[in-house]
Amino acid sequence: MAIEGKTEERIAKIRLGMVGGGSGAFIGGVHRMAARLDDRFELVAGALSSTAEKSLASGRELGLDPQRCYGSFEEMAEREAARPDGIEAVSIVTPNHVHYPAAKAFLERGIHVICDKPLTSNLEDAKKLKAVADASRALFVLTHNYTGYPMVRHARELVLSGALGEIRLVQMEYPQDWLAEPIEQTGQKQAAWRTDPKQSGVGGSTGDIGTHAYNLGCFISGLEIEELAADVHTFVDGRQLDDNAHVMLRFKGGAKGLLWCSQVAVGHENGLKVRVYGTKAGLEWVQADPNYLWFTRLGEPKQLITRGGAGAGAAAQRVTRIPSGHPEGYLEAFATIYVEAAAAINAVKSGQPVDPAVTYPTIDDGVKGVAFVEACVTSSKKNGAWVKV
Amino acid sequence: MAIEGKTEERIAKIRLGMVGGGSGAFIGGVHRMAARLDDRFELVAGALSSTAEKSLASGRELGLDPQRCYGSFEEMAEREAARPDGIEAVSIVTPNHVHYPAAKAFLERGIHVICDKPLTSNLEDAKKLKAVADASRALFVLTHNYTGYPMVRHARELVLSGALGEIRLVQMEYPQDWLAEPIEQTGQKQAAWRTDPKQSGVGGSTGDIGTHAYNLGCFISGLEIEELAADVHTFVDGRQLDDNAHVMLRFKGGAKGLLWCSQVAVGHENGLKVRVYGTKAGLEWVQADPNYLWFTRLGEPKQLITRGGAGAGAAAQRVTRIPSGHPEGYLEAFATIYVEAAAAINAVKSGQPVDPAVTYPTIDDGVKGVAFVEACVTSSKKNGAWVKV
Amino acid sequence: MAIEGKTEERIAKIRLGMVGGGSGAFIGGVHRMAARLDDRFELVAGALSSTAEKSLASGRELGLDPQRCYGSFEEMAEREAARPDGIEAVSIVTPNHVHYPAAKAFLERGIHVICDKPLTSNLEDAKKLKAVADASRALFVLTHNYTGYPMVRHARELVLSGALGEIRLVQMEYPQDWLAEPIEQTGQKQAAWRTDPKQSGVGGSTGDIGTHAYNLGCFISGLEIEELAADVHTFVDGRQLDDNAHVMLRFKGGAKGLLWCSQVAVGHENGLKVRVYGTKAGLEWVQADPNYLWFTRLGEPKQLITRGGAGAGAAAQRVTRIPSGHPEGYLEAFATIYVEAAAAINAVKSGQPVDPAVTYPTIDDGVKGVAFVEACVTSSKKNGAWVKV
Amino acid sequence: MAIEGKTEERIAKIRLGMVGGGSGAFIGGVHRMAARLDDRFELVAGALSSTAEKSLASGRELGLDPQRCYGSFEEMAEREAARPDGIEAVSIVTPNHVHYPAAKAFLERGIHVICDKPLTSNLEDAKKLKAVADASRALFVLTHNYTGYPMVRHARELVLSGALGEIRLVQMEYPQDWLAEPIEQTGQKQAAWRTDPKQSGVGGSTGDIGTHAYNLGCFISGLEIEELAADVHTFVDGRQLDDNAHVMLRFKGGAKGLLWCSQVAVGHENGLKVRVYGTKAGLEWVQADPNYLWFTRLGEPKQLITRGGAGAGAAAQRVTRIPSGHPEGYLEAFATIYVEAAAAINAVKSGQPVDPAVTYPTIDDGVKGVAFVEACVTSSKKNGAWVKV
Repeated sequence: MAIEGKTEERIAKIRLGMVGGGSGAFIGGVHRMAARLDDRFELVAGALSSTAEKSLASGRELGLDPQRCYGSFEEMAEREAARPDGIEAVSIVTPNHVHYPAAKAFLERGIHVICDKPLTSNLEDAKKLKAVADASRALFVLTHNYTGYPMVRHARELVLSGALGEIRLVQMEYPQDWLAEPIEQTGQKQAAWRTDPKQSGVGGSTGDIGTHAYNLGCFISGLEIEELAADVHTFVDGRQLDDNAHVMLRFKGGAKGLLWCSQVAVGHENGLKVRVYGTKAGLEWVQADPNYLWFTRLGEPKQLITRGGAGAGAAAQRVTRIPSGHPEGYLEAFATIYVEAAAAINAVKSGQPVDPAVTYPTIDDGVKGVAFVEACVTSSKKNGAWVKV
Repeated sequence: MAIEGKTEERIAKIRLGMVGGGSGAFIGGVHRMAARLDDRFELVAGALSSTAEKSLASGRELGLDPQRCYGSFEEMAEREAARPDGIEAVSIVTPNHVHYPAAKAFLERGIHVICDKPLTSNLEDAKKLKAVADASRALFVLTHNYTGYPMVRHARELVLSGALGEIRLVQMEYPQDWLAEPIEQTGQKQAAWRTDPKQSGVGGSTGDIGTHAYNLGCFISGLEIEELAADVHTFVDGRQLDDNAHVMLRFKGGAKGLLWCSQVAVGHENGLKVRVYGTKAGLEWVQADPNYLWFTRLGEPKQLITRGGAGAGAAAQRVTRIPSGHPEGYLEAFATIYVEAAAAINAVKSGQPVDPAVTYPTIDDGVKGVAFVEACVTSSKKNGAWVKV
Repeated sequence: MAIEGKTEERIAKIRLGMVGGGSGAFIGGVHRMAARLDDRFELVAGALSSTAEKSLASGRELGLDPQRCYGSFEEMAEREAARPDGIEAVSIVTPNHVHYPAAKAFLERGIHVICDKPLTSNLEDAKKLKAVADASRALFVLTHNYTGYPMVRHARELVLSGALGEIRLVQMEYPQDWLAEPIEQTGQKQAAWRTDPKQSGVGGSTGDIGTHAYNLGCFISGLEIEELAADVHTFVDGRQLDDNAHVMLRFKGGAKGLLWCSQVAVGHENGLKVRVYGTKAGLEWVQADPNYLWFTRLGEPKQLITRGGAGAGAAAQRVTRIPSGHPEGYLEAFATIYVEAAAAINAVKSGQPVDPAVTYPTIDDGVKGVAFVEACVTSSKKNGAWVKV
Repeated sequence: MAIEGKTEERIAKIRLGMVGGGSGAFIGGVHRMAARLDDRFELVAGALSSTAEKSLASGRELGLDPQRCYGSFEEMAEREAARPDGIEAVSIVTPNHVHYPAAKAFLERGIHVICDKPLTSNLEDAKKLKAVADASRALFVLTHNYTGYPMVRHARELVLSGALGEIRLVQMEYPQDWLAEPIEQTGQKQAAWRTDPKQSGVGGSTGDIGTHAYNLGCFISGLEIEELAADVHTFVDGRQLDDNAHVMLRFKGGAKGLLWCSQVAVGHENGLKVRVYGTKAGLEWVQADPNYLWFTRLGEPKQLITRGGAGAGAAAQRVTRIPSGHPEGYLEAFATIYVEAAAAINAVKSGQPVDPAVTYPTIDDGVKGVAFVEACVTSSKKNGAWVKV
């Protein structure tokens, strides 16, 4: 409730559109729940599917005005931009290859963009989109949603505070097992586009989940990568994109890291874990148990810091809704990205500076993520040679 | 998204009012987030605080129409009942002693009630409220929210399926530590009313959290209590209500149980745990890690069943929003009570029978909970004699 | 190695005999491994089984001198007492009903006794044995082996240091599932004697494991019981002794407790757990994960204190063999009881006072344990009335 | 007790000597406890320290005959070989650089060798020692003690049984934090030799713990490495050997792996973990919690298999002493290597074939371990180029 409670004076909800996210999509529903939870947005328009008919059907299910259910993002951008009550922001929740043209269409019309990751399906598009975003008066928010977890914020705050000393190691992993078999060949929709280079880009597991782990490792540690060496692999016969990657990293300043992402590691659902070790302390955060942060100072007992509990600092409290011991989950973390986006958008609308505490992944994080994927693939093609990122 | 996805045809949102839940309240915000998450309700009116001014201020924060911010629940009940667009349902989120008169006022006007627990501050009120509810065409839903967790649903389904065999033991505990010191004397609002017999009734920890543990043990095991023996105690000097209770239970049919609730058990945030043991298998569920259910068949390795994962059955899947490995939390479980309430309300509105799968705590559960509290206190006054419930 | 390392000057090994523990027994082998681990004892004689032949066969397996394999403890006591190189100490590892006569036979001859728990099969024998022990120049050591775990020692030290403040609650549980079915009827030897009142006494689960939990709760908390109310039950048809007990406790000074022991709780192997809560802090220790101690000060993050690690104090370090992160287990804890016994015996032999740090369960702990079992049974017969212990 | 119980006829204890392990050493005491636990060995001689005086002092503490306390391993080898009751086996527990000459001295005299890891301080010595061992009638046993844990044996058995399908991934890690600061500069003895290339060889963390992780990954998976790419690093200023290594591995047959070892990862005591993933199932074992094995079949709930419990197969049961729920630890696993060594030695003594179930790390495992360390260092010098092993 902290988040709700902060709205001391009521601000009108932000009018939101959505590109993608029609019936059967997973992430579209997640975005909608996230947008609703804290009451900052109202979904009023959508280009929810690839055809006008399907988009309309999905829009009806969601209670949208049929007039604002569009057959394409281009149409939505154009027509919504022309309405006095048109959307102020848009969520882009399509396969990766649509991110660039869709985001461009809205940014160029001054409509704020909240876009799924990875930023684009290739680095060239990513850089072009960055140029567009930089030139736009509208904001660009990338939903690296794991950065919204309170204990992730606390981990970052601990590093920034110097509690870990100088960072030596950042270990990231994101194993899953849902692609251990070639289910994309059975028509499973989520698997199909994620393993299709035309829709996903050059990275499979690297793009889908490796970018999350990478983003989170950088977010918490505050480090920037210098170079990496990768062994990217496809285990499942006939699969077109990687389903496993081993990556060694060197960060600017001398820290080192390992990153493992996999979609064939049987026994893992969403095993995202980040561990950071410094000269004075170490920490560990696991996405499946997100209300906990393990923190150990050298020579002291381990501490289990809990969301909302003693030991959680200001950065965590700021994005905490309910008291400790009542777990918040994935949707709350995702919603926090929307809350942050709303704070930034409302500041822009009112001509105010954005509160420096407002934190969300940006177009730059997106470019870095795509650069990471391409560097992994490039390094692997060179048999694991170190590649500057 | 399963829940959202099930709304194949769009049904209008249910118009909701709220009694209590003004600025600074914890549970009011929880109810609002829960009501919003799955988009079944729209908050349109409130008697949010004890005075018209405060209620209006809180209503403004929430974006309510000032005309529909009332100074008392009586006024809201009367005026909303008279509006053609009046509220169809009301959430009652006040201290316990207000539950009875408030619920009565709405039920008698045919307005559905979603009410916090415990049902009332004493058994007499509980029984009277049951009579009112039974006579009303409106529904009564009690927010024993922990019953909304998918793994709790799965635990219940396992018992019902016979997978545990004949139930022998039900062990419940709900330790907390937030009242380990007399913070009610410092003006902490949450502590103040919960330790005040006038607002809470005869039970302190027994009413506030013991009822949750008791409800959940009964919900999962499907058992009904026969009698109990309790040692109810107040550890903190000057506190007027119990802050710890040890209870031995005997269920109809021969099963036994233990229940421990405490608000002075240092190290526990919301340590709600239920364990059920039968002749064939045992299970354990812990609220702080709600996406897991431990299940062990006699003579087989332990299984860790996960929300959304392999092994989660239909009852759990029905109330699961997002895939396994992405944790759902307290708010989602709470929201599920709202989803269930909406399903039942919409069925009533449309003159259809309620889907038998719809599951929510009822007025009867509420009466049982208050009877439990009173039995604990009675037994304890008789030095732990067995008391029929 | 700390334990080994402390032997700065070599002291001759203590000559040890054993009563019980022949082929097929579980606990006899445990005692022998425990006695060997730290090299303080040498097993030289045994009355290992109930007949001379079986005893000899078991003795041969163990490499004993056939001349010192006896057909009865009486014979062993008499003949070993007469030898110049006779045993100095004896381990009694029989079913409960033999403890009293066997211990008496050795104590009366000045031979130190290391005896399994519970002390005896009834309180009368316990008191008589105490009189014998008090009158003997020999020591009596009871193998409540869980008190040998370093983290248990640390827990006790934390309480004694005042770190928990005034103790309010002691919660003990010891669930198992190995008797969930009537395996005693299949001839399983361990089950057969434990469910036979002639060999075990009046308590089943209460005597076999309830006493362990009770002893450990008292050991850690430093509290003494005043009275208890118990609901003791036999779930398995045809079983002669209890297989589950629920007990509410009141300690001298005002603390309260719960104790649950069960041999039918499916999913538990040896789920011994003790939790102690005071005004300032709480702690939790679980036997299955014995190298950890959870400790939480009110208003601070939980700490996970590890055996050998930072935060483990002098009492734990004193009985720690190997560095942190390399787990010690059940046998090491058991061996610590033997190390402590050896320290005390060697002090007695040399006419020195026993080091005050030496800690082992005594005849008094044994009497308390049997009194606890009888009180549970008595209370339960009175339908859970409070019984002074 | 299973292990003890198997000795149906008593076999004389094996006469054991020890090289190294004098006062203050950690691993010497571990070897002695391990050798004693199951009563297969009797320590009768030692070259415990680098001088005759110190060796004698240490020997006295251990109760050795002063005549058999030697000032050097050469002396011990020569004189013990000449005695009719001379040692049959020797434990070598010195810093790495002594392993080769000491082992050679005993092997050449037909005395069985139980030697600490890594095998030698360089690959050349390792190969020479292999030649010696191959030519000797005596056995060579390497104490990669983690292979003695029952759940490690079970993991290996699961892989061998085909339960995991075709192995795709082997992830190994062994983080510690005890060298996070330059404690070798303070005279800490354990740190001093481990960070000294003259005593340790080319590898620091790679040799000390990386070899353990590597050995265990290969032991469980049954795979052999083909090549590796490593980023080996020294974080602590002034340290002469590596204290962290990131290694990517490719196994023969196509599986891949990651290995991370570190002595500067704050918060880890002995965080050895091995995870193996195949086409059908995955497993995870953690040394700090060694009585558990996580096992997940694709599309089924996770299983927690426990030592001694349901689900533990024959290979685990064979090396299990006590029932499930009573944890065994590091010393028991270490002792199992000694039990296996004794079984092999006794077979050799009696001219019988060694039971095929007897399993211990061999000279070949030792050579592989040293080759792994050298390959890591070589690869790292080539900036992470792939190096055949």
